[in-house]
This record gives sequence, structure tokens and C-alpha cells, in this order.
Amino acid sequence: MTVYLVGAGPGDPGLLTLRAARLLATADVVIHDRLVHPEVLAHARPHARLIYVGKEGGGASTSQDEINNALVQHARLGRTVVRLKGGDPFLFGRGGEEALALEAAGVPYEVVPGVTSGVAGPAAAGIPVTHRGVATSVTFATAQLAQGEPDWAHLAGAQTLVLFMAGKNTAAVLEKLIHAGLPPSTPAAVVESATWEHQRVTQGTAGTLGALVT
Amino acid sequence: MTVYLVGAGPGDPGLLTLRAARLLATADVVIHDRLVHPEVLAHARPHARLIYVGKEGGGASTSQDEINNALVQHARLGRTVVRLKGGDPFLFGRGGEEALALEAAGVPYEVVPGVTSGVAGPAAAGIPVTHRGVATSVTFATAQLAQGEPDWAHLAGAQTLVLFMAGKNTAAVLEKLIHAGLPPSTPAAVVESATWEHQRVTQGTAGTLGALVT
Repeated sequence: MTVYLVGAGPGDPGLLTLRAARLLATADVVIHDRLVHPEVLAHARPHARLIYVGKEGGGASTSQDEINNALVQHARLGRTVVRLKGGDPFLFGRGGEEALALEAAGVPYEVVPGVTSGVAGPAAAGIPVTHRGVATSVTFATAQLAQGEPDWAHLAGAQTLVLFMAGKNTAAVLEKLIHAGLPPSTPAAVVESATWEHQRVTQGTAGTLGALVT
Repeated sequence: MTVYLVGAGPGDPGLLTLRAARLLATADVVIHDRLVHPEVLAHARPHARLIYVGKEGGGASTSQDEINNALVQHARLGRTVVRLKGGDPFLFGRGGEEALALEAAGVPYEVVPGVTSGVAGPAAAGIPVTHRGVATSVTFATAQLAQGEPDWAHLAGAQTLVLFMAGKNTAAVLEKLIHAGLPPSTPAAVVESATWEHQRVTQGTAGTLGALVT
């Protein structure tokens, strides 16, 4: 059967797409991350199998290989699988890796985009990522540095820069950006748990924000 | 009453959010762009007033000031207004300008993010905008140059670059990017009418694509 790589949106269950809700209501198996709201999972059928493969910060987690294998195995057993990811599957969602694994295994799949927290997060803080006369481009980057150091000078030259999953790295990342040429007076905000009930917004500048959020 | 600045998603009516569908079903007035699917508008109540303010390429269109005024006037007449925009309101949606106009007029408003074509378009062509080991950042820019020339060297240095609304500018924009340092061998694709029934994808390289799509 088909595997659907589905974006669950940033958190607010109202930001789930109609297609995602319909697919959840028909799936035999739902394999989901940590960043999926319980009300989103509530769209699944009562007898659907919900499998949690989320990653806690620092804790044990299901490896990407194990997730890929689970997708293939459930599909081969004739089950309709929804692989539900926070945000969008193809924007820091590692959906590309799962798509390649499914392709290699000959399992049919479809990608269902979701609302990304990269746009919804700033919006929830009242910040348009582009604005006429202010920013005609926006760059999305990850602050998880497991994949090596990004080109800080390039990121510092962005008109609007959105850093995903900055968390505890926020102060260190801002320091690197300033070192690479970002003016410390640049307006900046941290949005935690964007669009969730417990969303928290901290505003400041690139120079002050690191101290405000630690 | 409240004005809702709502993202309609990239086209596919299944990519509308649950919250957008609910708001459409309660709105007195729906003010919408050209890039909104008829099945999305079908969520509106039978007696809702649908007002088209779309911009055709080169043709006459409603000015941004007129749109801002319409939002304020309908709200002041006690009507619930949904301002429906293709994609997301805050990513090349000019939602920031409407938000400022509503704020200045003292009209309450809410922003409801949508699925952006900047991610859904590439996804529909099988392209993840980020991918482990390949691209850890992505830049979204507009190819509409009415706001002046962008920093081509910066855009040419992006890991993944998504250009909105390139249309007839595609060849010219690719030329400028190559002139600014983008290797002509860089894989590139044009996605027209992303996620619509008549979606068309053309693949090539930065050096060849301009000739393929004109």
C-alpha cells in the first residue's frame, strides 16, 4: 500500500490540511514525531496503530534507518501508512531521505506538504518574513549543527533569516552570525512552541537576544 | 468585526487548512486573489459576498490601497471578513501591508498561515528544498523585480534557491544568477501552476532551463 509523507503543520491543530485530516482518517498505521499535537492525532481512526518515533533532545530515539524500515515493512504488509511530521516533510523534515528509501524499496509514496513553522512561527509573533521595501527574500536554515558548520557569512547576509530548532544553541548561533557580519542591532525574536497553546515569544536584537533566552 | 488574513495554500484545495475552511464557512465577505482554487471558494457560505481583487499579468487590478480600504470598510460595517491569499499571507503575500493598514484603522485581525507554494511547488516536482548532506538552508526570493534588483551574488550563493513568480522573467533571472556566480550546471526546475490539475514541471540546469521554458 501507499505511504503518505504528511506535514502536520507547526502545532495548532487548525493548521492541519484537509488532505492530511482525510488521510489520517483512513490510515492503518500512523508513524509520528514528537512535534505533533494530540488533537492532530485524534483524526486517526480508533483502531489505527499509532507509532511514536520522536526524538527527545538528547534522549534515545528511533534512528532514521529504523523509521525507513518501519515505513517499508508496514506498506509491504498491505497497510496504508501515514508518516506524520511536524511542519512540512521537505523543509527540515528529512522527508527526502524517507522518499529515497521508499523508492529504493519499490513502495509507492506521496508527499503532502504542510504549513511550515518557519513562516507560521514568525507570523504568530506578528512578523511577516517578507515585506515590501524591507525584505524581498528570506532564508530558512537549521541551527542544529550536527551536519557541520553552515556558511555563516552567507546566512548573516540574508534579508530575513529564520533558524529552525535553535533552542539551547540560540546564543551561540547569534554570536557566530554577528562575528560573520550581522549588525548586533538587527531586530530579532525567538518563538518557542510556535502556534501551540504554550507559545512564548521573546523579542530583542541579535546582540541582546542570546542573553534574554538563556 | 475581525478580518482574517488567510493563506489558501498553493492551489490543490486539499492543501487548505482546517481553520481556513472553518473561517470561510462563517465569513460574510471573502476578498480573494486570482490564485485561489474554485473548490477553496466553495467552502464559503451560499450567501457570502465574494469579492475578486486579483491581479492578472499586466492587466488592470485592484490597488493595494483599495484592498486595504475594502478590508477596513467591511469590518466597520460589522462583517466578518476573510482575506484569502494564494499560498501564505506573510511570504510574498503582502499580508504585512494589510496587517499594518488594519492596525492603523483599529480593526482587529488575525493571520492564518497557509501552505506555501515555495515548498509545495518543489515537492510536487519531487524536490525536497532541504536534504541532509546536500542543502541545510533554502532561500525564497521573488523574481518580480518591481521592487528593484535583488543582491544577485547573495542569491547565487544560496544552497537551495526558490524564486516565486518567475514566469516570463525565468531566462533573464537565470542569466543574472549565472553572471553573479551560479554554476550553469546547477540542477534547476520550473514548476508552473504547482499542485493544480494543470501543473507543469520542466527540469534542466541553470544554464539550459531558460531556453526550455520560453
